[in-house]
Amino acid sequence: MPGDVQTARLLITCPDARGIIAAVAGFIAEHHGNILEADQHSDPTQGPLQGGCWAPGAWTGRTPLNVPSAAASPQGTFFMRVEIELDGFDLTRDTFATAWEAVARRFGMRWNVYWGNEVKRMAILVSKESHCVSDLLWRWRNGELRVDVPWVVGNHVDLLDAVRSYGVTFHHLPVSPETRTQQEARLVELLESSDVDFIVLARYMQVLSSSLVSRFAQRIINIHHSFLPAFAGPRPYHQAFDRGVKIIGATSHYVTDQLDEGPIIAQATLAIDHRDTVEDLVRKGRDLERVVLADAVRLHVEDKILVSHNKTVVFD
Amino acid sequence: MPGDVQTARLLITCPDARGIIAAVAGFIAEHHGNILEADQHSDPTQGPLQGGCWAPGAWTGRTPLNVPSAAASPQGTFFMRVEIELDGFDLTRDTFATAWEAVARRFGMRWNVYWGNEVKRMAILVSKESHCVSDLLWRWRNGELRVDVPWVVGNHVDLLDAVRSYGVTFHHLPVSPETRTQQEARLVELLESSDVDFIVLARYMQVLSSSLVSRFAQRIINIHHSFLPAFAGPRPYHQAFDRGVKIIGATSHYVTDQLDEGPIIAQATLAIDHRDTVEDLVRKGRDLERVVLADAVRLHVEDKILVSHNKTVVFD
Amino acid sequence: MPGDVQTARLLITCPDARGIIAAVAGFIAEHHGNILEADQHSDPTQGPLQGGCWAPGAWTGRTPLNVPSAAASPQGTFFMRVEIELDGFDLTRDTFATAWEAVARRFGMRWNVYWGNEVKRMAILVSKESHCVSDLLWRWRNGELRVDVPWVVGNHVDLLDAVRSYGVTFHHLPVSPETRTQQEARLVELLESSDVDFIVLARYMQVLSSSLVSRFAQRIINIHHSFLPAFAGPRPYHQAFDRGVKIIGATSHYVTDQLDEGPIIAQATLAIDHRDTVEDLVRKGRDLERVVLADAVRLHVEDKILVSHNKTVVFD
Amino acid sequence: MPGDVQTARLLITCPDARGIIAAVAGFIAEHHGNILEADQHSDPTQGPLQGGCWAPGAWTGRTPLNVPSAAASPQGTFFMRVEIELDGFDLTRDTFATAWEAVARRFGMRWNVYWGNEVKRMAILVSKESHCVSDLLWRWRNGELRVDVPWVVGNHVDLLDAVRSYGVTFHHLPVSPETRTQQEARLVELLESSDVDFIVLARYMQVLSSSLVSRFAQRIINIHHSFLPAFAGPRPYHQAFDRGVKIIGATSHYVTDQLDEGPIIAQATLAIDHRDTVEDLVRKGRDLERVVLADAVRLHVEDKILVSHNKTVVFD
Repeated sequence: MPGDVQTARLLITCPDARGIIAAVAGFIAEHHGNILEADQHSDPTQGPLQGGCWAPGAWTGRTPLNVPSAAASPQGTFFMRVEIELDGFDLTRDTFATAWEAVARRFGMRWNVYWGNEVKRMAILVSKESHCVSDLLWRWRNGELRVDVPWVVGNHVDLLDAVRSYGVTFHHLPVSPETRTQQEARLVELLESSDVDFIVLARYMQVLSSSLVSRFAQRIINIHHSFLPAFAGPRPYHQAFDRGVKIIGATSHYVTDQLDEGPIIAQATLAIDHRDTVEDLVRKGRDLERVVLADAVRLHVEDKILVSHNKTVVFD
Repeated sequence: MPGDVQTARLLITCPDARGIIAAVAGFIAEHHGNILEADQHSDPTQGPLQGGCWAPGAWTGRTPLNVPSAAASPQGTFFMRVEIELDGFDLTRDTFATAWEAVARRFGMRWNVYWGNEVKRMAILVSKESHCVSDLLWRWRNGELRVDVPWVVGNHVDLLDAVRSYGVTFHHLPVSPETRTQQEARLVELLESSDVDFIVLARYMQVLSSSLVSRFAQRIINIHHSFLPAFAGPRPYHQAFDRGVKIIGATSHYVTDQLDEGPIIAQATLAIDHRDTVEDLVRKGRDLERVVLADAVRLHVEDKILVSHNKTVVFD
Repeated sequence: MPGDVQTARLLITCPDARGIIAAVAGFIAEHHGNILEADQHSDPTQGPLQGGCWAPGAWTGRTPLNVPSAAASPQGTFFMRVEIELDGFDLTRDTFATAWEAVARRFGMRWNVYWGNEVKRMAILVSKESHCVSDLLWRWRNGELRVDVPWVVGNHVDLLDAVRSYGVTFHHLPVSPETRTQQEARLVELLESSDVDFIVLARYMQVLSSSLVSRFAQRIINIHHSFLPAFAGPRPYHQAFDRGVKIIGATSHYVTDQLDEGPIIAQATLAIDHRDTVEDLVRKGRDLERVVLADAVRLHVEDKILVSHNKTVVFD
Repeated sequence: MPGDVQTARLLITCPDARGIIAAVAGFIAEHHGNILEADQHSDPTQGPLQGGCWAPGAWTGRTPLNVPSAAASPQGTFFMRVEIELDGFDLTRDTFATAWEAVARRFGMRWNVYWGNEVKRMAILVSKESHCVSDLLWRWRNGELRVDVPWVVGNHVDLLDAVRSYGVTFHHLPVSPETRTQQEARLVELLESSDVDFIVLARYMQVLSSSLVSRFAQRIINIHHSFLPAFAGPRPYHQAFDRGVKIIGATSHYVTDQLDEGPIIAQATLAIDHRDTVEDLVRKGRDLERVVLADAVRLHVEDKILVSHNKTVVFD
């Protein structure tokens, strides 16, 4: 890991072809960039890029999809992440896109570049369970997560003290079936006025509207307290207990319109046995949830996740 | 583990009540038995014993269910396993049931006793995949599994050599939709004539009839190549690849009428990532399947599994 | 787990013999006690009990070691833990020892009984790292750990705010080679005046004196940030990095006079690879340390650990 | 994974510098090669390359170390592995070195190229334990390991039948303190006459001579049945039992002159508890050993391991 070195992170998805790595690495060398990390992946099972799976907002510098090129590439999809040391690199946020355009166009790339010196702004939504939000705030305070945290929103007031003890503002936005629309409008106001980059649902027990989800596509991270796709939906530990499984799990994923069916970022599991009550599963599961959610957030913050066809490529 | 000491293993299920352990341990002490292991478990969530979940054949010495007692016990179900050193114990297969009857009746027990000096007879059914059957035969040959193996049945002939190299008879019983009934009749003949105690489906890709399953209730062990209940049914590794999970698993369970829904005995999981193709999942999964199946077979052979309400209590 | 039911926990160690379980369970039944959990273990490899390995303070009700009986028992050591529901049990803290004496004497037992309605008092010692103490205080505040926490002592002042945010008193007891004796005298004063039952070293980077260790024998829990016995001593993550291991670990253990060599309570491991820097190991290791320490503390609080011959028997 | 596609695998180690990836990828593109996988790693903690840690035999195509370049690179060591599709690539085993020389010289590279269409020849050495050798031969027979196996050598005769059942020649080379030199001379003869590429010690309980080890530097793979560096030396499961650890492990590593101290390739661990006897550890450990050894062999066969400063970089 490059540690405290300032870097640009270039993420690329395009139809597979010969010469992509040479073109990218050559471009960077030409502009005196030092490559600190380079990862790439070819998935021959994925056909042409799907327009619908990309979040416009997340791909600020992307070129239009080169349809003929994609159609001519039966061999699958290519993914790449390059981390470039800023020191010595002669391109900046202002000049990168113009210089890069020719390479991107040649290979029909969807791409984005993240400038590591710009700190992402992370909003956290909670309900009553404190373990995930406390864990995230602890990591943030102790330097594990390099983000800004403008506020935490809770639909209940239970976690007000826990959040404030970290010096973070807590907004209470209660919600009922009747007030759902107004509450979300208020939430969107907060997201906009605080210039939020991504949202973490730290055991937030409400479903977000389709329009909010698509607006923050691939920028809302949820933790589900089961090993998905097993035990989707409510009360997964009860479901696990009733089924008599010998292992429980937790899953972090990007939120999509399909409940608990978004692209999976990270998962972990833990052995249990017949002596474990539902309460034991809840207690043991908390340790899984915290770690799996923190891991997903870290990967997102470090721009290590690419999404395609509802699956993630995680370059860690 | 008691190693090579000969033991009797007494398995008990009954409505929870005070004094059960004292009564059982007192009975054994009275008959000069040395308790090598004693495990017990109370499940307050399980109501009265279900008649339907017990396999008559598996409980050769059981007493009738004491309905009034069960009805008077709202506090759940009690499970116990005691392993008694045969040396010094003054009861035998012939005299145990009579002596034990009063205790069993008092607590409304379903119970069985296994005599560790009697070696169980294990039938193995296979199709084309060799890893599970080879692993079981290796463990048997190397003293890990104390069973007799009268034969292996395959619906394909592919594994004939692999099985014979262990000195075990291979029966080829091909099957088609038209011949299913006759093939199973032939299988039942083999099971009967060989006095088989339990059956292992070592990646046997055929569904057994309801009547065979109920005849060997809690005595047919299957391995499913996923982390159940995720990816039940065919081609679980393909399903896992398509869903983009970050962990795969394997599950051993007793076979019931509901496909892939029997009581789970053992599970294990393994981390994967986006670089793993379906072929990689198949390869990595084989190592999980072998270990999970072998573990379930060992537990069954050592009489360490109790079943109730479609869940297992495993005293290991 | 018995949940909120009040219980007495009886821990027994004695030379192995026939009839112990029957005697113990019979005694409890006679006194109208309901056994909620009973675990026992025989270790044939352990010879007669060692006088030196028992902490007098920890075994308040113990009988004198029955030497003839121990000498007559070449078959090893027997361990037992019984959890008895207080409701209905006709013995109390005042009357238990007298009633129990005959059984204990008959089998030459070392024993103790813990009354679950008495809350243990836990002292925490820290230096500069906050992850373990924050985690313990979080669990305590959220009901996972049923203890009282009179104060936290730090030899540095760094964690003052983190501790106080949980409403807990922080004592700063700085230490230098010259002031070691006085600092520990002050610590002992605090331990005594606060009636502390056990001590947790939550990444406390000082060695305690022999006299303090023996006074709290089997009542001081340490977390070491490696998979012991690998990488004992200082800077274990650096040692692990230099050796190029592919897995790191953490170990919680009772403190003895031998640095990092006390009886191990719990361990956990995590896969790493060549991309992980020392800083990555430190970061990933924190998640292991927190869980492993919290697990050890929970087991101690629930009286689930027996120690013999520098090893633990953990009935969980 | 490229599956059945024929590839060349280029492994590179050199002082870190700007432009390496561009130069390598540019070279390959220039020769019409398609990069199927490219992994690289920078280790800033490793100083100039050590002459002594490279096996001459293993680096058949290497250029002389460019000392001035290395001296000018304080920033550490760079590792790279590129897998190039042979189809379309205009270089071959005969022409590659000459074409590549300029790039290698410019960056002071130590490098080698493996031609995936050439099958490696694997010798296996055993003593009395069959689980590792049986597992390797099973994987070989079932297509998991793409190698040739000219023979297995045993210093005992116990595994003759197990090996022959796979259709492999078994050579019995007994050894005593007096005959050690002659036995190894006989072994070397076999290695030479069979043109062996690498050696697997599948629980071979003899120490190889320094001269044989240096001759097959980084080409002898051993499995040690502990989590190294814990419990090096003989009887590690007994050591683990005596210490009372809660987790056991297995370690595969390249053999060096220092017993159990060679570069670690793969490790795995497994939770145990106080009920496990030494025999249980041996049994459970076998499953770890098989998987960890098979993994190391697979990585070696697929040319995914680079060694430097007694540590491995594993590009999997």
